[in-house]
Amino acid sequence: MIQTTISRGFYLFFVLGCMFTCNCTYGQEEGNRPPNFIIIFADDLGYGDLGVFGHPSIKTPHLDRMAFEGQKWTNFYAAASVCTPSRAGLLTGRLPVRSGMASNEHRVLFPDSKNGLPASEITLAEQLKEVGYATAAIGKWHLGHKEEYLPTNHGFDSYFGIPYSNDMDHINNKGHQNYWEQPNDSIKTEHFNVPLLRGTKIVERPADQNNITKRYSDEAVSFINRQGKKPFFLYLAHNLPHIPLFASKDFLGKSKRGLYGDVIEEIDDGVGKIINALKENGLAENTIVIFTSDNGPWLPFKNNGGTAGLLRAGKGTTWDGGMRVPTIFWCPGKIKPSVVSDLGSTMDLFTTFSRMANQEIPKDRLMDGLDLTDALLQGLPSPRKSVLFYRGVELFAARLGDYKAHFITQGAYGEFGARIEHKKPLLFHVAFDPSERFDIADSHPEVLSNINELVSGHRAKLIRGKDQLAERE
Amino acid sequence: MIQTTISRGFYLFFVLGCMFTCNCTYGQEEGNRPPNFIIIFADDLGYGDLGVFGHPSIKTPHLDRMAFEGQKWTNFYAAASVCTPSRAGLLTGRLPVRSGMASNEHRVLFPDSKNGLPASEITLAEQLKEVGYATAAIGKWHLGHKEEYLPTNHGFDSYFGIPYSNDMDHINNKGHQNYWEQPNDSIKTEHFNVPLLRGTKIVERPADQNNITKRYSDEAVSFINRQGKKPFFLYLAHNLPHIPLFASKDFLGKSKRGLYGDVIEEIDDGVGKIINALKENGLAENTIVIFTSDNGPWLPFKNNGGTAGLLRAGKGTTWDGGMRVPTIFWCPGKIKPSVVSDLGSTMDLFTTFSRMANQEIPKDRLMDGLDLTDALLQGLPSPRKSVLFYRGVELFAARLGDYKAHFITQGAYGEFGARIEHKKPLLFHVAFDPSERFDIADSHPEVLSNINELVSGHRAKLIRGKDQLAERE
Repeated sequence: MIQTTISRGFYLFFVLGCMFTCNCTYGQEEGNRPPNFIIIFADDLGYGDLGVFGHPSIKTPHLDRMAFEGQKWTNFYAAASVCTPSRAGLLTGRLPVRSGMASNEHRVLFPDSKNGLPASEITLAEQLKEVGYATAAIGKWHLGHKEEYLPTNHGFDSYFGIPYSNDMDHINNKGHQNYWEQPNDSIKTEHFNVPLLRGTKIVERPADQNNITKRYSDEAVSFINRQGKKPFFLYLAHNLPHIPLFASKDFLGKSKRGLYGDVIEEIDDGVGKIINALKENGLAENTIVIFTSDNGPWLPFKNNGGTAGLLRAGKGTTWDGGMRVPTIFWCPGKIKPSVVSDLGSTMDLFTTFSRMANQEIPKDRLMDGLDLTDALLQGLPSPRKSVLFYRGVELFAARLGDYKAHFITQGAYGEFGARIEHKKPLLFHVAFDPSERFDIADSHPEVLSNINELVSGHRAKLIRGKDQLAERE
Repeated sequence: MIQTTISRGFYLFFVLGCMFTCNCTYGQEEGNRPPNFIIIFADDLGYGDLGVFGHPSIKTPHLDRMAFEGQKWTNFYAAASVCTPSRAGLLTGRLPVRSGMASNEHRVLFPDSKNGLPASEITLAEQLKEVGYATAAIGKWHLGHKEEYLPTNHGFDSYFGIPYSNDMDHINNKGHQNYWEQPNDSIKTEHFNVPLLRGTKIVERPADQNNITKRYSDEAVSFINRQGKKPFFLYLAHNLPHIPLFASKDFLGKSKRGLYGDVIEEIDDGVGKIINALKENGLAENTIVIFTSDNGPWLPFKNNGGTAGLLRAGKGTTWDGGMRVPTIFWCPGKIKPSVVSDLGSTMDLFTTFSRMANQEIPKDRLMDGLDLTDALLQGLPSPRKSVLFYRGVELFAARLGDYKAHFITQGAYGEFGARIEHKKPLLFHVAFDPSERFDIADSHPEVLSNINELVSGHRAKLIRGKDQLAERE
C-alpha cells in the first residue's frame, strides 16, 4: 500500500504561510558581492528533449555537463502551460492569474493585443535593478509589445529580441498547417513579419530567424564581456524551438533528430559559449545559471514539436507534460552537484534571486515564489511542497508532495481529449507514476482531502487581476 | 523531405559481409596485458529507468557518473525482447534463432524445460578463457538449469546465482496477478522456490531474494579483489528489477519511485561498489565495464514494471521499447567520453571483447556481432548499420540506419494490440521519431526496398537451430 508521507501538521505548516525566516542569504554568508544571475529560457522545449533528460537523438553536451557539475531538477514546473502566462509568472514570482496575464479565451498575447504586463507588477529585473544590478533582456518577450510594456519599461536596462512568438505576423495568414512539414523549402523566415527590437526600436523586420539563436547567444556573451563591477542579471529567452523552426547554416542537418534537434543543438552551443565567457571573465564561481523552458512540447506539430519523455501530454495542458520542464542550475563551487527531485517552480526564481541579492520580497501583495537558496547552495530539502496547475484562469489540478489531483482535464488544441470536470478528482502518485496512468483516488481519500484544503486556502485569498489579454485592436 | 542517407553502395557493403579487417586490436595497440571485462546486465530494466536516461524519481548517481565519464549509447539493442533469447544472443554473439534459443510458443526456458544452450555454441566466456582469462558468472542464468547447461559448463570458472527467473517455482502457483500490488506484505521471497546455486550445487532454496542484489554485488567485488595476474571476465546478471521485486533493508523505502526505484537504486549502489573495487585494485584503467539490460520494461505490471521513457511499448514486443536498452560503457582513459547515438547490439560484445583480447572470431558459423572497438576507444563511427528484430523465431522488424520497418506488429502479453501482418510494412524514422508514431512508408519506397534486400540477404543464409525451448518434462 502506498503510504501518505505528508502529515497533517506538515501540511498546515506550508499552507498557512510562505514565510521566509532564514537569515543566511547568499551575500551575507559570503561577505562579498552578491551573485550574478543568468536565466536561459527555451520556448516549448519538452521535458524529454535534452540528452541528460533522456533524448536519444539530440546531443546537448554543454547542458549535460552543466547538469553533471550542477543540479538537475526533475520536478520543476513552469508557472503555466503556455507562453505569456508562464513568462509573467517567472518574472513576477506570482501566479499569472494574479497579474491578469492569463485568460481562458485568448491564452497568450497577439500582435493585435492592446495590453501587457501591468506597471503595477514588480518584475525580478526591477527587484534586482533596485539593489544595483545591471539588467538585460535578450530574446522573446511576449508580455506586451507596445512601448510601455517592453522590457526596458519593466526593469531591464537593455533589450534585444522579438516582442511575441516567432509564428505570429504570418504574411500569408495561412495558419499553422504548413509547419508540420518542416524542413520544407516553402517555409521561409521572411513569411513571418515579426519585428526585431533593440530597446524599444525596430531594427529589423521581418526578423531573420535563420540565425536568431546564434545572435541571441552572441548578444549574451557580449553583455557578459562588458560587465564591470556591478552584479548583473541576464534574462535570455530563446524564441525557439517554438515553431516555425530555423537553424543557422552551421547547425542545419547536424542533429540526428532533424531540424528540431538542430535547433536544440544550436541553443546548447550557445549555452557552451555563455559558460565559456563566464569562465574567461572569472565570473563562473559567482554566477548562478539556470536553464529551463516556458512549457511542454507542442505535440500537434509532430516531429517539429518536442517530446515530454515519459510525462503525459504536452503544451497547453495541465498534465505534467505541459508544465514540468527540464531544469538545470549551475554555479561551480556554490551550487551543490546533485539530482534534485524536490519540487520547484519558475516562480521561485524571483524569490530566490531576490534573497541571494539581499533584496526584500514585496510585502504588499501575495507572492507564490519560494526561496530555494538552501536547496541550491546547501543541498537541503526544497521548501516547495505544492504546485497549482492553472489553465487560463481556472485551476485544473494541484500537486501536494508526490500526489497530484486533477479537478478538470482537457487535451490541448482540440485533438487530445475533451474537457472533463471530474466530480471525484483523478489522483496520481507522480513520483511512483510520473506518466499519470494509475488513478488512486478511491484508495486515498485523506490525500484528496488535504489537496482540497490546500486549494480552498488558496482560493480564499485569491485576488484575480483584470484580464490583460482580452482587449484586441 | 527526409533524405535517404544510406547510399546503395554503402548498404551492399554491410549486407555482403560482416568482415573484420581492422588489425589494430586493443592488446596490440597497448602492447600490454589485454583488458578485463565486466558486463553488468539488469533484468527488465526499461530504457527510461536510469537518471541519465531521463527518469525523474529514480536516482542512479553511480551510473550517471559512469555515463558522464564514459560513453552513453542511446541506440543500443538487446538481441531479443525477452530473457532467454536475449542472454543467448549476448553470450554467443549470434541471433538466438541460430542457436535454437528462441521459440514462438515458449518464449523462455522454464523450471520444467529439458534443454538449454547447446554445447556446440561458443560463449564469450569460452572465447576469453581460451586466451587465459579468469571467468565468473554471477546472477541469473536462464540458459538451462540442468548441470550440463550451467555456466561452469559454458566457459565460466565459477557461478553464483539463480538458474532462471525469480518469479518461477511459485509455491502456490498463483500466476502473476498479485505482483501488481507490490509492495504487498503477502508477497514474500519464500513463495518462490527458486534455487540459489554455487557452481552446480544448490546452496539455498528458496533463494532469499530480499538481499540478493546486494549479495551479487558483494560477490562481484570479492571476485575483483581476488584477481591476480590473469585478465578477467565477469558477467554479473542481476535477476531484478524483474518481478517480484525485493530490496534489502537499507534500500526499502529509499527511492521516490517506490519499490521499483528501491531495487534500481540498490543495483546502482552495487555498481558504485564495483567501480570502487576497480579503483582500489588499480584496475579501473584496464577494465571495460558495460551496464545494460536484457530487454525493455514489463509494462503490464504497472508501477512494478519500469518505463521505456519516450520509446514505444515494452518487453515482449519488437517496438523499440522492447529492445532498445539503456547502455553505458566505462573505462577511464580508454573509453572516449561521449554520447553515442550510433547503433550497437549486445551481440557486439562477443566480437568486441574477443578482438580486444586478441582472440579469433569463430569462422565455422555465421556471427552477428560486430567489432565496436574503434567506436569505444577512438570515438569512430560504429560499424553497425542494421538491427534485426525477432519475436520468437519470426522476424518482425528490421532497422537500417535510422529507418525501421515493421513487417509484423503485436502487443505483448495479450493486452497491448493484436498481431498484424502488414502487407505494406510500417516505416519509421526512429532518430527523428524515436516513439515510432509517424509511418512514412508511402513516401520512402526506396528505403523499404533497401530494408527488404537486407532481410532477404539475411534469410538466404539463415540456418535455424533446433528449438531448445520446446521440450518440457
